[in-house]
Amino acid sequence: MPTLRARWVLPIGRPAIENGEVVVAGHVIAEVRPARSGPCDLDLGDAVLMPGLVNAHTHLEYTALRGFTEDLPFFEWIRSVVQHKTHFDEKAWRVSAQLGALECLAGGITTVADNTDAGVTMEVLAASGLRGVVYQEVFGIDQREPVDGILGALKTKIDAHRRLASDRVVVGISPHALYTVRPELFDALIPYAREQGLPISIHVAESEAETMLTEEGAGPFADMFRARGIQWTTPEVSPTQYLADQGALTRMTLAVHCVQQSSGDIANLARSGAAIVYCPKSNAKLGSGVAPLPQWLATPGLRIALGTDSALSNNTLDMFEEMRFGLLAQRSSRKHATAPTARQMVELATLGGARALGLEHRVGTLAPGREADLIAVDMSRAHTTPATEPYGALVFAARAGDVRLTMIGGRVVYRDGHWSTLDAPGILDAARTGFKPAGQG
Amino acid sequence: MPTLRARWVLPIGRPAIENGEVVVAGHVIAEVRPARSGPCDLDLGDAVLMPGLVNAHTHLEYTALRGFTEDLPFFEWIRSVVQHKTHFDEKAWRVSAQLGALECLAGGITTVADNTDAGVTMEVLAASGLRGVVYQEVFGIDQREPVDGILGALKTKIDAHRRLASDRVVVGISPHALYTVRPELFDALIPYAREQGLPISIHVAESEAETMLTEEGAGPFADMFRARGIQWTTPEVSPTQYLADQGALTRMTLAVHCVQQSSGDIANLARSGAAIVYCPKSNAKLGSGVAPLPQWLATPGLRIALGTDSALSNNTLDMFEEMRFGLLAQRSSRKHATAPTARQMVELATLGGARALGLEHRVGTLAPGREADLIAVDMSRAHTTPATEPYGALVFAARAGDVRLTMIGGRVVYRDGHWSTLDAPGILDAARTGFKPAGQG
Repeated sequence: MPTLRARWVLPIGRPAIENGEVVVAGHVIAEVRPARSGPCDLDLGDAVLMPGLVNAHTHLEYTALRGFTEDLPFFEWIRSVVQHKTHFDEKAWRVSAQLGALECLAGGITTVADNTDAGVTMEVLAASGLRGVVYQEVFGIDQREPVDGILGALKTKIDAHRRLASDRVVVGISPHALYTVRPELFDALIPYAREQGLPISIHVAESEAETMLTEEGAGPFADMFRARGIQWTTPEVSPTQYLADQGALTRMTLAVHCVQQSSGDIANLARSGAAIVYCPKSNAKLGSGVAPLPQWLATPGLRIALGTDSALSNNTLDMFEEMRFGLLAQRSSRKHATAPTARQMVELATLGGARALGLEHRVGTLAPGREADLIAVDMSRAHTTPATEPYGALVFAARAGDVRLTMIGGRVVYRDGHWSTLDAPGILDAARTGFKPAGQG
Repeated sequence: MPTLRARWVLPIGRPAIENGEVVVAGHVIAEVRPARSGPCDLDLGDAVLMPGLVNAHTHLEYTALRGFTEDLPFFEWIRSVVQHKTHFDEKAWRVSAQLGALECLAGGITTVADNTDAGVTMEVLAASGLRGVVYQEVFGIDQREPVDGILGALKTKIDAHRRLASDRVVVGISPHALYTVRPELFDALIPYAREQGLPISIHVAESEAETMLTEEGAGPFADMFRARGIQWTTPEVSPTQYLADQGALTRMTLAVHCVQQSSGDIANLARSGAAIVYCPKSNAKLGSGVAPLPQWLATPGLRIALGTDSALSNNTLDMFEEMRFGLLAQRSSRKHATAPTARQMVELATLGGARALGLEHRVGTLAPGREADLIAVDMSRAHTTPATEPYGALVFAARAGDVRLTMIGGRVVYRDGHWSTLDAPGILDAARTGFKPAGQG
């Protein structure tokens, strides 16, 4: 039974153990305890040993499109993404998702909630060793495209994904957003998800453009709909209310973003049992504003997770930066007293994500019987020395590059610059040479 | 003459050169050109070769107090800092500043504008190879402390610093802030600085507490003054106006922070010729708000630099994160159209800093005759691949940890985890063991 030792063990939900040990037995944790005298199998020294990070929203297949769309506000950005997407084939998407998996593993992410359009991430997660939920995206805003055809194609994809599913990687669906999925399609998708026990991920209340569409029938989405002959009946309610009315907010739903929310929206969402994913860097980059995290944290029972979103709007998959930026963005924009603490950010990035995915009995904490999904974060480098207190050090000083060890289900998937499950040199080379924005050489 | 080659050379102020070379002759740059065929002395491959970063505001001697004061708003934070400072001696401050120098060099910072209270950073900069200006801090808000005594002590320190000064490291003064320096002391300090040709650095309009003090004679500073019997005549003007009235804003002044500024304040400051230092992460962490960077950028002739501030309010000295956070904080808080671009952030961190320090003819750009202060930033790692365009890659994806080479005046001071001028293991060990917040074991 391998025993790992470090200056700090952070079980999450229980106090940190200074000079602690974690004993791993097979794929699970056997014991979390103060360090004993005598040898251990791996002494990580001045490091934090903690649960692997849960990245509760990303699109791994867009990782190699990093930097393709800079300096654009939300609507122009998403139009640009759609254009770029037409230039790549399934082989390219696979490389791009593999690149994302490399970055996750090297940065201490052990569980991902991944949205896929091309459908390649099931096999990438299966091969990489990452734990996660893969949500197959569905689009269909245009009334001229029959619902039966969309649903049939989705079922074929879900059946194919299920053949790759496992105890570690499960399948869900993502009705993409209210501006890409029409009411009739929600009416087909939500019962299908319920019957099949498929979790749901959906982009909710991300941009002002989305709010203008549902509340006023105005703004860039409304203009585009009119130009393309797409029918749209303005509901004159908020995006959150609209999606609640579509039945899209359930106990199995990840409501991603939720930037544009009133107190009523938050109460409404909390009643639905849906979980929220906070993606602060993506929200900032796309000019969407600052989400009401303090109000979420003050809402009893509301599950909150943290996500990087894709490299197209971030541009990295670095949960340390996400914790740091999320906290600082809140302090920047609101009165200091309501901002979250470093410890709360670490909890969102671990147990919070696990709860949002319904995995809190398996991951997100270090405890006997939990999956051995754990990471070691080096605290001995110049920029983290001295590490006065572990939560502050993780949130305010550590970088993804400080992760020295990533273990998933007892298997070492990354250690000191080396990945054990993926051909990193081959993937990096393919990503470096195979992706150029259209119009560039 | 060593020739360095990389996928991109960023001269700054002129277009990027894809596949470029920089030829170094002694301490200066001899040539910046497209790569020639044939061998070179150092091929950095998929990397950006660019001018060293200018960190235009920090306090290196506080680096080892990283994490001592978390989750506090500005006034409580600065009181806590003052308390912590009483626990350390000159030897400790030296170690702390050395730690800061290690972090700067490893993160591609080649020039620092450093505020020192203990006075130790002259020798640390001299030994480390860093270029910079060291501003000796001066305090004196209490009318019972004679100006002559303060000025005499300052002159002694300045004379000592000048014995360590060089072409590379020069001396300045920092009247700390309007709430720590009284008008009579400004009346002595500003003429002294002018006579002696000493540049000035001063914290300006950082917090709401400072604005409340000058505009209303209220808030925590005013309360503290009353409790301690410190005389304060409320000027009923903004902090910027008050400091202009004290003569503290000159062509030789770095006005640090400037978060709380009206359009009139910005015009006033621009007229004075002072330069501004933007410290976005520190401003966020202390809950000071978001500085009006777009308005500064729109003000003709106004010099703007970027700084990390100290590890006590950041907690790292990472100019890549500072560029990234500064841009994202602006996009978060304002309409998208006015936010700076990635290229503008890179310019602030190089040429902007050089101009603010009056060093633009020596550093901040790569050009023949300029000092060979340059860095190589690796773009081949998972989180930076593919690097689509250099400015976006530097601002949105790169980390301080991606710096592979730091050269100052033609001398390699850092390369691939090794520092050539400082005893890194000794400094890290001393910083790890010698600094604990008071009250901890």
